[in-house]
Amino acid sequence: MKLVNYKLKYDFAPNRIGMMLHNNVVDLEQAFKQMIENDDSQESVCPPPHDPETFYAQAPSSIKTAEKVYTYIQNHQPQTQYKREDVILETPVPNPSKIICTGINYADHIKEMGSEPPEFPVLFSKFTNALIGPEDDIHKINATKKLDYEVELAVVIGKKASNVKKEDVYDYIAGYTIANDTSARDLQKRTVQWLQGKSLDHTTPIGPWLVTKDELTDPANLKIQSSVNGEVRQSSNTKHLIFDIPFLISFISELITLNPGDIILTGTADGVGLAMDPPQFLQDGDIVKVEIEEIGFMENKITDR
Amino acid sequence: MKLVNYKLKYDFAPNRIGMMLHNNVVDLEQAFKQMIENDDSQESVCPPPHDPETFYAQAPSSIKTAEKVYTYIQNHQPQTQYKREDVILETPVPNPSKIICTGINYADHIKEMGSEPPEFPVLFSKFTNALIGPEDDIHKINATKKLDYEVELAVVIGKKASNVKKEDVYDYIAGYTIANDTSARDLQKRTVQWLQGKSLDHTTPIGPWLVTKDELTDPANLKIQSSVNGEVRQSSNTKHLIFDIPFLISFISELITLNPGDIILTGTADGVGLAMDPPQFLQDGDIVKVEIEEIGFMENKITDR
Repeated sequence: MKLVNYKLKYDFAPNRIGMMLHNNVVDLEQAFKQMIENDDSQESVCPPPHDPETFYAQAPSSIKTAEKVYTYIQNHQPQTQYKREDVILETPVPNPSKIICTGINYADHIKEMGSEPPEFPVLFSKFTNALIGPEDDIHKINATKKLDYEVELAVVIGKKASNVKKEDVYDYIAGYTIANDTSARDLQKRTVQWLQGKSLDHTTPIGPWLVTKDELTDPANLKIQSSVNGEVRQSSNTKHLIFDIPFLISFISELITLNPGDIILTGTADGVGLAMDPPQFLQDGDIVKVEIEEIGFMENKITDR
Repeated sequence: MKLVNYKLKYDFAPNRIGMMLHNNVVDLEQAFKQMIENDDSQESVCPPPHDPETFYAQAPSSIKTAEKVYTYIQNHQPQTQYKREDVILETPVPNPSKIICTGINYADHIKEMGSEPPEFPVLFSKFTNALIGPEDDIHKINATKKLDYEVELAVVIGKKASNVKKEDVYDYIAGYTIANDTSARDLQKRTVQWLQGKSLDHTTPIGPWLVTKDELTDPANLKIQSSVNGEVRQSSNTKHLIFDIPFLISFISELITLNPGDIILTGTADGVGLAMDPPQFLQDGDIVKVEIEEIGFMENKITDR
């Protein structure tokens, strides 16, 4: 199931949770009502929240209900569907309590950045001011001349997680999405802490949807790629992660309690603009595409601000 | 005015916004009602939110209303007051969208940490999982053997702030409070990014209240001190900040839009446990006191978890 945070174009109503059905968007609440009206056996199910923030706050029960509705609409024609071109998709989880990023977690990227392989995961953060949707432009402010892309597999937490064992980690995951962890290299590296280069306003697209965990064949074996104006820059596979998803989530959960909707970025592969010879940074008008096998892709334009 | 996030002992009602009147707590909403009922000239004022999170989300208008109510109760006996021992104070802003910390921002602390004076402010973050109130115990988990204290002046934002000039910064500040930016030195320093040593669950007391900006003589000239079991460890003055408050807030606001309720920690002075000879870290049962002139103090016990 692909869960989206959507709104209709030319509509001022608040964003809602939807599900992709082929290339259309089905509203979760509308489909739930249809299911309840037509299927007497389902009457005891609580209605899922239609507001995306509340939906994830009420995970995992909200996601379980969505799964029932998704099974229903696969077998019954939904009364209402919206065409892809009539909706705007926004970042799947709009207001996570944490965005935790992993640094230098692919061996080839460590080599190109001149770093040492870390003994422990390198963790840093972004704030929600950086978050944008899959169709938004990435803003480039004058303060940076070295804006760079980083395609990453992002894990969305589905259940409050504290001291989770590696073997139990998948029970705490809602699903996966794609992040472009854009990095202002000049600001990132002007002090010993990276935050100020990693959390600029309106710079980090996440999306286009959350793919629930049941839908991926193997999150540890997905092709991952980025390109700029059609030229492939990063091309790797999530099997090259140094600290894999079970290790990362277990490691973090021993230090920091994770909430439903929290987003963990797993790190990026080699091929970033900083490591090119000569370095190539993002410029006004550039189109960055990030894609991960079995999840999808996002294309975002860079615009000067 | 000292704004508190309080609840009554032995009561399961949600937390509320109160004001300190001498050593008692006056509920903002109750006092507002009293003011409206007794003063016809105030009728057009909107009632302030009693929920602390909503109160700060609606700053600056909510704070302006609170100021009117505070003036009123200074001149009229409030109908209800709670004694300090009948209430529990929690962290003044319970769910800030950002906690931004400043590293190595006092010259003497830079020397003791063996760091270089930074050319730009060093910024990192904590998440709200770390936040605790002024009366809570600081949890020390087994994963750290080197938990350390850091007393810091914390600035609370009162108005959405983006690209704010240094000379205008005070317009965007709601007030000030005290933070103990506890740091698990072993976890902080085992990778190049500090986050994992800075955001452990239930480790960072902030409080005891927010002192509105009008009440401080000069935030750039306040004695600041910490002690462990009565022994003074840090003793400095906020005049020794390398990057002062106007510079810091202006600098951050050029990169990251700040929201009402966001908290900026301004850095700590010399005297941390790591720099003692031999180093002294916090142990189960220790009492850490942090205090800042004109604001107040917090005492928190360390408890093993």
